[in-house]
Amino acid sequence: MREFFYPKSIAVVGVSERPGNLARSIAQNLHEFSFDGIIYMVGHRGGIQFGRRIYKSISDIPDSVDLAVILTPAHTMPAILDECGSKGIKRAIIESAGFGEYSEKGKDIENKSKDIAKKHGIRFIGPNCIGVMNLKNGLVVPFTPFQDVFARGGISIISQSGGVGISYINLLESENLGISKFVSIGNKTDVDENDLLEYLLADPETSIVCIYLESISNGKRLMDIARKAKKPILLHKSGIGDLSRDIAASHTAALASDDSVVDAALRQVGIARFRDSETLLDYLKVLPLPRLRGNKLAVVSRSGGQAVLAADACDLAGFKLAPFPEKFVADVEQHFRASVIKLTNPLDLGDLFDYDIYTKIARETLAQPEVDGLVFLHTYVSKTEGEGSRKLFETLTDLPGEYSKPVVTCVATDNRELSYLKQNYQLPLFTDPLQAVSALSLARDFRHDIEVGHASMPDNLNVDKRLVRSILDLCREESRNPLLLEALEILDAYGIPVICSRLVENEEEAVEAAEKLGYPVTLKIVSEQISHKSDIGGVQLNLRSAEVVRNAYAEMMTKIGEHAPEAKVRSALVQPMAQPGSELIVGGKQDKQFGPVVLVGMGGIFVEIFSEVSRRVVPISHEEANKMIMELKAAPILTGARGSTPRDIESCVDSILKISRLLSDFPEIAEIDVNPFRVFNQGKGASALDGRIIISEPNTL
Amino acid sequence: MREFFYPKSIAVVGVSERPGNLARSIAQNLHEFSFDGIIYMVGHRGGIQFGRRIYKSISDIPDSVDLAVILTPAHTMPAILDECGSKGIKRAIIESAGFGEYSEKGKDIENKSKDIAKKHGIRFIGPNCIGVMNLKNGLVVPFTPFQDVFARGGISIISQSGGVGISYINLLESENLGISKFVSIGNKTDVDENDLLEYLLADPETSIVCIYLESISNGKRLMDIARKAKKPILLHKSGIGDLSRDIAASHTAALASDDSVVDAALRQVGIARFRDSETLLDYLKVLPLPRLRGNKLAVVSRSGGQAVLAADACDLAGFKLAPFPEKFVADVEQHFRASVIKLTNPLDLGDLFDYDIYTKIARETLAQPEVDGLVFLHTYVSKTEGEGSRKLFETLTDLPGEYSKPVVTCVATDNRELSYLKQNYQLPLFTDPLQAVSALSLARDFRHDIEVGHASMPDNLNVDKRLVRSILDLCREESRNPLLLEALEILDAYGIPVICSRLVENEEEAVEAAEKLGYPVTLKIVSEQISHKSDIGGVQLNLRSAEVVRNAYAEMMTKIGEHAPEAKVRSALVQPMAQPGSELIVGGKQDKQFGPVVLVGMGGIFVEIFSEVSRRVVPISHEEANKMIMELKAAPILTGARGSTPRDIESCVDSILKISRLLSDFPEIAEIDVNPFRVFNQGKGASALDGRIIISEPNTL
Repeated sequence: MREFFYPKSIAVVGVSERPGNLARSIAQNLHEFSFDGIIYMVGHRGGIQFGRRIYKSISDIPDSVDLAVILTPAHTMPAILDECGSKGIKRAIIESAGFGEYSEKGKDIENKSKDIAKKHGIRFIGPNCIGVMNLKNGLVVPFTPFQDVFARGGISIISQSGGVGISYINLLESENLGISKFVSIGNKTDVDENDLLEYLLADPETSIVCIYLESISNGKRLMDIARKAKKPILLHKSGIGDLSRDIAASHTAALASDDSVVDAALRQVGIARFRDSETLLDYLKVLPLPRLRGNKLAVVSRSGGQAVLAADACDLAGFKLAPFPEKFVADVEQHFRASVIKLTNPLDLGDLFDYDIYTKIARETLAQPEVDGLVFLHTYVSKTEGEGSRKLFETLTDLPGEYSKPVVTCVATDNRELSYLKQNYQLPLFTDPLQAVSALSLARDFRHDIEVGHASMPDNLNVDKRLVRSILDLCREESRNPLLLEALEILDAYGIPVICSRLVENEEEAVEAAEKLGYPVTLKIVSEQISHKSDIGGVQLNLRSAEVVRNAYAEMMTKIGEHAPEAKVRSALVQPMAQPGSELIVGGKQDKQFGPVVLVGMGGIFVEIFSEVSRRVVPISHEEANKMIMELKAAPILTGARGSTPRDIESCVDSILKISRLLSDFPEIAEIDVNPFRVFNQGKGASALDGRIIISEPNTL
Repeated sequence: MREFFYPKSIAVVGVSERPGNLARSIAQNLHEFSFDGIIYMVGHRGGIQFGRRIYKSISDIPDSVDLAVILTPAHTMPAILDECGSKGIKRAIIESAGFGEYSEKGKDIENKSKDIAKKHGIRFIGPNCIGVMNLKNGLVVPFTPFQDVFARGGISIISQSGGVGISYINLLESENLGISKFVSIGNKTDVDENDLLEYLLADPETSIVCIYLESISNGKRLMDIARKAKKPILLHKSGIGDLSRDIAASHTAALASDDSVVDAALRQVGIARFRDSETLLDYLKVLPLPRLRGNKLAVVSRSGGQAVLAADACDLAGFKLAPFPEKFVADVEQHFRASVIKLTNPLDLGDLFDYDIYTKIARETLAQPEVDGLVFLHTYVSKTEGEGSRKLFETLTDLPGEYSKPVVTCVATDNRELSYLKQNYQLPLFTDPLQAVSALSLARDFRHDIEVGHASMPDNLNVDKRLVRSILDLCREESRNPLLLEALEILDAYGIPVICSRLVENEEEAVEAAEKLGYPVTLKIVSEQISHKSDIGGVQLNLRSAEVVRNAYAEMMTKIGEHAPEAKVRSALVQPMAQPGSELIVGGKQDKQFGPVVLVGMGGIFVEIFSEVSRRVVPISHEEANKMIMELKAAPILTGARGSTPRDIESCVDSILKISRLLSDFPEIAEIDVNPFRVFNQGKGASALDGRIIISEPNTL
């Protein structure tokens, strides 16, 4: 990939003298940014630009060329790439549009171009992109003219969309954040985000990579790369809903994927996902700071009101405020002139107007072992307090390094002053206390995820593959999905506990089954037409004798007849009365991008209404499966908080791991849904009360 | 209140020649903003400032004075106000700190000052504030020096904190949004936010009021004022959590209130609450636009990627994208030069570089009856496209007026150009598609709430006040809260359906009760020590005969003895088996600021884990009570969505209204908690299965 960013010579293909010619802007950008290599221009009409000749064809160029940047109509691409090949050019950036994102015909041209490139060993970026920038050597080849107003730094950008990429660049400029490299990848027909990400993570000039994607090219590879990454990766994955699907497909030929799986996958490998430019800026400002070693902040503020807002923000973000020791308060108190302020954390500086003391307080605050980070809120009038404030900011810029603790600054001042600060200080600068604090929380949560994201699947599970194989083969033969009892058998073969169930067709069979299972039993109607069985008397619990079972069966059939005459009722299920417990839903599916994915959530109306489930891409470790459960809002119900009985979480963890193994072993299992999965009291295990498995062979239902 | 903003003459009290004197900045601001009245300076040392004498006392001023602006030490305040009174000054702004927010002594001075002001008929703003600004007449009296860089307009600001108030002003300046008046109210010892809000809502120069509060002075009055308001009110109420409570109290002597009640109250009367400056800006940009008449937007974009982001944002905000009719698409297609873009909504302008056609497309889009609003996303390079783009923005500024539909613009360009646009165009300008769309959704949701916020309580409820009175009197006499059966009696007296329950002390009583109630019955343990009865066998359902009841009772007592030997178990409750239904929690309490508040939520683990309840300040209408239920995420469970059985929502609405009546009639009822309140199938009513009432008489438990 390095050859895309450090060519010694470039051919810009598509330049003409005609007004509005876009390829000319590419050459212009190379001049504006003082590209340190040789530039050749090519255009079939020839002519002169920038005092130099436009070659009529690539083969006319007298010397060797490392990189071709091409902006000509789509249909010319196969021939041009062929020419590049003959010339020995091994790298190309194709900025033209009109390929697969536009029409079937365009798709054909795209495929043909790919083949020709492959034949010649050419790697190319695009088509349908705005190109590449490397601020180090002036390689700036977008077809939109730029002025060189950008700060140099360690942020590199990969963007599937040119427009969004440019908006990022403008955003970074507005905050004076330094850029290293930029790549717009468009249709990513050859080079994709993974190729570039891998390069940038190894690139010594890049310290942080931020990516905009409408589609993910290879989820598994992305995860592998991210797992090994030593630098932060920030990703904006759009196309989350129905409304954007069409436009994304036509825009960069992107395929929609399941957004919740994307979310899970990114979190698992410590890629920080952002959805708006504010959050991107927040990350870029706080990630370079020393990391938070704990969760306790100190807030020091010129304005009492801003201090209140910062305290609220700490509440919302889950931070604690470090208590100030008495000695510290006594020291600080001495600095105050009129002393009309109470000294707590947040610390309201109030009527204290001495910048040296501000600095001293900031230092003393950071020196406290209890304090993990500092939020400094400064309100000032630039005309009278500009000089003092700027000195203060100089110190605040140095403090994180000195104390190895993050410091964020929130400033309320006029806008001219604010621009000055942004241009001249490398401070993480905010204007809203809520934002300053939530940015710190992003850094906290980001790093936390990275640490626990590395895991592999345990393989000491005792499973019966052959039994599953035979059931699946039978289903495939009969072109159907497994029936309920078959599904339970499959689960059982992988060691997932399932409830003992007997199918009965009349009262006497029901009593017989109950006698075998032991009282009390549960009677459940079996009917595809009735989804909420209990509402119409289709579930009878706690049946304690033969007579009660017999009556309940008869009563049930009568009621069903009354309430749901349309339902085809043939039989009922007799099950032993399950021990008391909590009902979860456990399951998984195959994702096209990421492979097997497992999930767990609280069952019943919880999952229906709140759709709160934890997902993970397989493989996951025992710890990670446990974390899936613990991150559910409903986890306190299981752990025994608030006086409830602790449930057998371990057996739930175990079943999640076994389902992940089942999905990995049998890719033809498209979906597993165990609902309800009842988890008994601690030490008592769990039981799948119902189970559904869908297989994905082309000939099945 | 008008006299605070339009005085003909002002005395600035506290001016001296000494360096760092703050009152001098007040006089300086009046000069900078060319105040159109007469300014007098007062300071006990006398001297000269701005080429004029400083009077040694207020009584030395030769003419009459309308307004005194005072910045002298707290302890001098009573004497100065007395002097003001003698001089006939009826309005004062006290900017000094060191009063009730600081110490008990300060609190005494504050009270004394208040008494003296009252004696003289003086109304005052403050103390502990930074004063008032009126950009119309140059009345600018904060003690921080300002430069006159502010746009004039219709936004007026009330801020309890001076620092936060200044940050708002800076924020408005940064977006060139026009300001009318600003008031910092500090301790609001005399004049409070309600006095000023009432004035500003009537003030013809104010079109929108934005408020920052740490405490609410009079919730009921705030609601009354807001109900009658014809202008948008935006409120930032801070102090939401534990961490900010102390600092808020010391900062402006504010008292914390229950934040969820504040939330409910504000929503009820259509006050838009915001929590950060971005949201404030969003409101200020979109509220002046024509209102959305429906929920369908059109997105037109120069960049395909930005269009994807806007579509995602529409998804998140609950907007639909209007489908474009074929004729419209055909018309637009003609404008395209190279046509490499598919025409859908969002519309990607792609390679079309013609600003006249952009304008035409924007007009044609807005002319479609299906389109309720337009999001125009523009990405451009100012150097080459600045001229055309600016013309386009001129048109976009006019379009909302022409078509009576809102248009928001999202721009990606360099920062110099962005500043230019903000300074020169009255466009609602955004730089992030997500933000542009979510701002539109704020406007949509804001207006919606205002319409339904006006309501009064129905009073045709048939209630037995005397019975409740007698139970409450008995409880008060015995210094205790009502027992379970008394609580149910109170609910019953107000027509709230309660389950028939019998208290039994042994097996035979249990059977006797069951025979009377009719089988099947439920048996529940009664013990204060056992909170989760069912986990240890303390609840037995579906008991269908005398023998089963007898055995269940014995078994229950044995089990309890085993599992919870420490629990004091004396008795059990026999209840008829309640019909199937959904369990809600219904209740209410008295709020210090807002009076009676009612709430409803899904019961059991729902309320425990998700704390999702709807609250309303009483009085509420029947419609509003219904809306409380419908806005619960779990409402689909009740309405019969997804195949579930519809429940008797009407009886739940009825009980909410009756509880609101009960709380209004008996303010000594501090809290009512009906949990579970089981709602049966539609037409079958509901039943309180449990109830708890807490009374607040000083002598009770």
